Amino acid sequence: MTVIQNNLTEKNKQYASTFTKGDLALPPAKKYAVVTCMDARIDPAAAYGIDLGDAHVIRNAGGNAKDALRSLIISEQLLGTKEILLIKHTGCGMLTFKNEDAHTVVQKQLGDAAVKELGGLDFQPFPDLEQGVRDDVAFLNNSAAIPDDVAVSGWVYEVETGKVRAVN
Amino acid sequence: MTVIQNNLTEKNKQYASTFTKGDLALPPAKKYAVVTCMDARIDPAAAYGIDLGDAHVIRNAGGNAKDALRSLIISEQLLGTKEILLIKHTGCGMLTFKNEDAHTVVQKQLGDAAVKELGGLDFQPFPDLEQGVRDDVAFLNNSAAIPDDVAVSGWVYEVETGKVRAVN
Repeated sequence: MTVIQNNLTEKNKQYASTFTKGDLALPPAKKYAVVTCMDARIDPAAAYGIDLGDAHVIRNAGGNAKDALRSLIISEQLLGTKEILLIKHTGCGMLTFKNEDAHTVVQKQLGDAAVKELGGLDFQPFPDLEQGVRDDVAFLNNSAAIPDDVAVSGWVYEVETGKVRAVN
Repeated sequence: MTVIQNNLTEKNKQYASTFTKGDLALPPAKKYAVVTCMDARIDPAAAYGIDLGDAHVIRNAGGNAKDALRSLIISEQLLGTKEILLIKHTGCGMLTFKNEDAHTVVQKQLGDAAVKELGGLDFQPFPDLEQGVRDDVAFLNNSAAIPDDVAVSGWVYEVETGKVRAVN
């Protein structure tokens, strides 16, 4: 077992030993979904005030809306969520490179087989934080897969301060 | 402001008021990534023992590896992670429907525009939990985009007990 796997099992033993929420329903109690970044500096439950059982939390590189679409459709069409909070963050790694940079790294470090497997994968970096939030909110609002009665709002989380602010 | 948005801002004010971790580095300190489900009953930081700053957390419907591939490549090629924990869970919604069921719901509730936009989207449900974990671990191990020196392990989280167990 690796150090990481050992950490998982040991910490989880402690968690399970005081666990009392085994009866929660599958659909999110508060009928909302959060889309945010995979960034290690974000703890959505704590920072965004999500109690266990209340919301779907979708995380990927950049808090990307396109990448989250499959999950969001399942969330709202099969499990009844009615609101989406899209939360990107300051200091995001996706602000620091371009698509071609990522493809160059893949070619150099992983080689032809990976290039072939990935094809023209869009890594979906974005050069401006607030505009990135606005673009993703617009993407969801314009998607036929997200009906008009699902409210979508855009936010920025500041990894330096722990604060969330709305993006207009 | 909606009730959900108000919850976010009010709870976040409390979080930020005692926040002391504003100096964490962008790359995950413990160099690992977790892929798990968006399910509302999972709190990865607490249940999987992830301290702030230690790991990327990727979440989507089902804890799906294919869906996570873009994020995982960025995690390991650009931000130095060396290990992946793939953790699906008991009672997952993805065990309860077939791809054609989801497409029928989309057609009925969202109509032709959504069907056209989504094309033949694979919602990626899976009929068996342990096999689903094994299949996704195999997918990552077989992907040229995940090099052989990145350790991948598969796990199940029990929403009824809070316990994690390894899948062989």
